[in-house]
Amino acid sequence: MTAEQRTEAAVGPRRRIRLTVAYDGTAYNGWQYQPNGVTIEETLNRALTELTGERIEVIGASRTDAGVHARCNYAVFDTRMRMEASRFSYALNQRLPEDIRVRRSEEVGADWHPRKCRSIKTYEYRILNEEFPDPLDRLYAHFTYLRLDVEKMREAAAYLVGEHDFRSFCSIHTQAESTVRRITALTVERNGSVIAIQISGNGFLYNMVRIIVGTLLEVGSGKYPPERVKEILEARERRAAGPTAPARGLTLTDYEFLTDEP
Amino acid sequence: MTAEQRTEAAVGPRRRIRLTVAYDGTAYNGWQYQPNGVTIEETLNRALTELTGERIEVIGASRTDAGVHARCNYAVFDTRMRMEASRFSYALNQRLPEDIRVRRSEEVGADWHPRKCRSIKTYEYRILNEEFPDPLDRLYAHFTYLRLDVEKMREAAAYLVGEHDFRSFCSIHTQAESTVRRITALTVERNGSVIAIQISGNGFLYNMVRIIVGTLLEVGSGKYPPERVKEILEARERRAAGPTAPARGLTLTDYEFLTDEP
Repeated sequence: MTAEQRTEAAVGPRRRIRLTVAYDGTAYNGWQYQPNGVTIEETLNRALTELTGERIEVIGASRTDAGVHARCNYAVFDTRMRMEASRFSYALNQRLPEDIRVRRSEEVGADWHPRKCRSIKTYEYRILNEEFPDPLDRLYAHFTYLRLDVEKMREAAAYLVGEHDFRSFCSIHTQAESTVRRITALTVERNGSVIAIQISGNGFLYNMVRIIVGTLLEVGSGKYPPERVKEILEARERRAAGPTAPARGLTLTDYEFLTDEP
Repeated sequence: MTAEQRTEAAVGPRRRIRLTVAYDGTAYNGWQYQPNGVTIEETLNRALTELTGERIEVIGASRTDAGVHARCNYAVFDTRMRMEASRFSYALNQRLPEDIRVRRSEEVGADWHPRKCRSIKTYEYRILNEEFPDPLDRLYAHFTYLRLDVEKMREAAAYLVGEHDFRSFCSIHTQAESTVRRITALTVERNGSVIAIQISGNGFLYNMVRIIVGTLLEVGSGKYPPERVKEILEARERRAAGPTAPARGLTLTDYEFLTDEP
């Protein structure tokens, strides 16, 4: 028996574990490690390192912005800890703050990488549209008292569905090589005082969902006519579009991996 | 013109203003002034004193416990400030923290007192009943992974509707003379993973709603049979009932004044 084999026996073979993670982004400076402010990623790394005794650094699927929430994001890590894969969720939740929960843990292939899979992500943006803000929804909805015309927002949204160059709907700080993306669905629904915008696609540029929402808000309040969105797409420059809507209304709600390849 | 009359002319006649108040109770030590911790009442008093330049102390309708939320509570105060009654809400919201909002302000009779009116209050208690807590609902729902039987909870709830001596469902720290109250409605509904208990009545004893919910939780999880609730009522002592459910799940949702007299 070699030294390597003895270690294997003691601590188990190396496995890759995938976590399904939900969080309230209010208190965090986004997913990805930052010099200033606590992030989701480093909070997971700390809990995993504490649990396993190994130095763990997760690979995240979607690197959500500061203040953005998630019901379904993913992270993977490698460990030699002997524990049933499904038990990591319970063990981690005991070590994580209440605003981050691991909803599921499971073993995946040793090379499986969440950002190297073809996927469809769905975001929901909630807008509270009544006379006064609701203190019980202030962390999870953007408030506006300007009466929004949902029919016009839908008309505007229709121009964005499909494959387009979304350069106008992308922060000037993007590092993306191509700004072409495919939006597979974009719906706007009113339920009482809450308007929910759901947007699904194969990938989103930096701030893309929030700039789309900011633009739809301008349409809903009557500042832009719906057909203006077609011109904004064609302009291919950020300043043509509306402002970036606040992070608090945005939640990553669904994440579907289509294949294990890009 | 007397000195009194000159003052009246300068600052306006004394009026009683009623506020409809909503709040997230998470950060507060309840409604009523306490030596320790910030309360809703003192936060309103501070904003009103700042706004009017008078020393204002509100009279609250329901003195909710620490951590309990409200969509509809009331407070009145007297002022000589010249301002359209409906404008107080806007002026106050500019001075209040985001977790307290005044939804409406209006003038009422000079002697109108919210605790001297006959009224029906409605509370909602939300329970998240699935395998893992939801970080986005952690502040507004009590979490339990124990699968609850809603049908049995309804059976148990039926014993509580009507006029009863609720001594068993009342904190031993109560100062109430009579422990007889009338529950006019008590419903238990499941919607996906969320169970909502709605309870309406003409008045509630100290911790009464939370002890009722704590008892229904014992029934739902199978610890008590539904008919046990009848025995608990008859026992007329606190220790016969279930534990006090956590404050975070509880919201005062509706408050209806039936008459201007007790």
